[in-house]
Amino acid sequence: MATPLHAPLPPTLAWEGDVEGRLLLLDQTLLPHEVKVVAVRDLATAVDAIRRLVVRGAPAIGVAAAYATVLGVRNLAPSCPTSFDDAVAQVTAQLEASRPTAVNLAWAMARMRRRARAESSLEALLAEARAIHAEDAEYCRRMGLHGAPLVHQGARVLTHCNAGRLATAGDGTALSVLFAAWRAGTRFTVLADETRPLLQGSRLTALELAAEGIPVEVVCDSAAPGLIARGEVDMVFTGADRIAANGDAANKVGTYGLALACAARGIPFHVVAPSSTFDLTLPDGRAIPIEERDGNEVLELHGIRIAAAGIRARNPAFDVTPAHLIRSIVTDAGIVQPVDAATIKKVLAGSR
Amino acid sequence: MATPLHAPLPPTLAWEGDVEGRLLLLDQTLLPHEVKVVAVRDLATAVDAIRRLVVRGAPAIGVAAAYATVLGVRNLAPSCPTSFDDAVAQVTAQLEASRPTAVNLAWAMARMRRRARAESSLEALLAEARAIHAEDAEYCRRMGLHGAPLVHQGARVLTHCNAGRLATAGDGTALSVLFAAWRAGTRFTVLADETRPLLQGSRLTALELAAEGIPVEVVCDSAAPGLIARGEVDMVFTGADRIAANGDAANKVGTYGLALACAARGIPFHVVAPSSTFDLTLPDGRAIPIEERDGNEVLELHGIRIAAAGIRARNPAFDVTPAHLIRSIVTDAGIVQPVDAATIKKVLAGSR
Repeated sequence: MATPLHAPLPPTLAWEGDVEGRLLLLDQTLLPHEVKVVAVRDLATAVDAIRRLVVRGAPAIGVAAAYATVLGVRNLAPSCPTSFDDAVAQVTAQLEASRPTAVNLAWAMARMRRRARAESSLEALLAEARAIHAEDAEYCRRMGLHGAPLVHQGARVLTHCNAGRLATAGDGTALSVLFAAWRAGTRFTVLADETRPLLQGSRLTALELAAEGIPVEVVCDSAAPGLIARGEVDMVFTGADRIAANGDAANKVGTYGLALACAARGIPFHVVAPSSTFDLTLPDGRAIPIEERDGNEVLELHGIRIAAAGIRARNPAFDVTPAHLIRSIVTDAGIVQPVDAATIKKVLAGSR
Repeated sequence: MATPLHAPLPPTLAWEGDVEGRLLLLDQTLLPHEVKVVAVRDLATAVDAIRRLVVRGAPAIGVAAAYATVLGVRNLAPSCPTSFDDAVAQVTAQLEASRPTAVNLAWAMARMRRRARAESSLEALLAEARAIHAEDAEYCRRMGLHGAPLVHQGARVLTHCNAGRLATAGDGTALSVLFAAWRAGTRFTVLADETRPLLQGSRLTALELAAEGIPVEVVCDSAAPGLIARGEVDMVFTGADRIAANGDAANKVGTYGLALACAARGIPFHVVAPSSTFDLTLPDGRAIPIEERDGNEVLELHGIRIAAAGIRARNPAFDVTPAHLIRSIVTDAGIVQPVDAATIKKVLAGSR
């Protein structure tokens, strides 16, 4: 049974209780067919949930891992002789290794370690996780405000993967812009790339947009460049998982091809990401680690094999779009345009 | 159960018997899981088989429709007062309307009508269909010979959709080049785009290549541009469904994005197509009709719905790659390079 479009979804993630509490995750692998919240009480389950994309989207992964740090340290505490700092270091290292490309995860783990050095208590860790959570929601709100004017009346927008409520602790990154524009009275239509192999576009983005009454149609990832060339798209918005100092942006595989098609047609390709997605330690995109996932994600669907027995698959989860193809980067601190190292530095100075 | 990789497949299509015979089609919608040959004895079944992609690939559609003309005219003959010519005109018009983009279909139907005007007999129609069939196999052989030298030792090749034995009456178009290079002793590897929505790459191309012992891995369509940008691909070969006089080429949706990525990286993007795929009546690609198929092909997999209820999809089946992105077009008459109207005319003059 498919979910009725207007059923309100539970929050993407939530912490329930005090330091003895638990992390609640909306299981995104089951959407849109089943709405199930899983309660996470230990580190191993949290790492597995991040790896399997029960929770996904760079900002949401950061927030979930922050809460999972509380779980990991709490469960270690009684039996281990290790110091609080060391416990936090161990736990955050495990979480950080769960997915390599999104920098929000590393950023959140660094914050948790910093807090632990300042205050050696589970209460402080939980407070820090709650702060990261609240900030992410606020970042989403600000990205929406800054980006909404980029969407004109009657625009035909295209987006890729899911950069919405299901990818953040707020209204999303790319979708936050669309939600804000819609609330401001701008009327537009959206093409949502289905986003193989895990179909976040057809399963999640279409659901989020339709639930708000925003007209949306799904399209195969491979069809988007041709539709852009034929003049059927006015602008593209995507999220990002890591942005280097020069503006090169890693995002869900397929993003780079969209940016090429936008440049060829001369339409804007916008990236929307919070300041926590910038990794200013990397000069450019070549240094961004690209996660390669299990080929069976490509070769099986609903547990049914597509290819003949013995066939293997490559499955890079991200690609890198060079800065020169990006018209603007919408951040919580304002809009980066033109996309270059100096402008990024200047805009981010407002948020740091 | 998945098909064992080395089980030889029945022919893509065959005619059995004389004018009272039947058209045999290997049902490609069931591959690689089930090998089933369907016997077609009437026009409606043939049109349905072409529409549902039981038989697919521009050249194979042309050959199948030529044989289906015999079926249609034979079944009309006894009861209808219409002339033989009119019967052929009616039948070929129905077949021609079954799929709009591939020009090989229109080309084959024009040949059948021409033959009917010269000789009013079912025997003549069957002879013409057999001639088209034999020519297509010979075209494949020649494309392979001309194109094989483009593949160098150790090359990392990428291909899209299925342009192989299952798309033609011979060794294929793009894959004919690969098979010929392999037989000549060149060793290389292939990435096969899965080709959403109907997965001809994972289901068919991977099967064909692996059966010959050519190393192949499947990749999501959206991942190919990123892999090209990272230097993991040396050249791309695809087929085509219709090529305009200036070299603009319509092919399976997703082809255009590959060509953009090849141009950005400076690696060759080659199209392989028989002379029957050229439509010199169209000055450029803007005039090529693009088939829009049922959105449920995108929204359902194995009969299971992906998106929430009520969500719709766009489903263009082809896109157009502009000539300036194509390094060369390999044809049965030789290689078109540079790709422009004058060179196309000169090369095709050798085959017409």
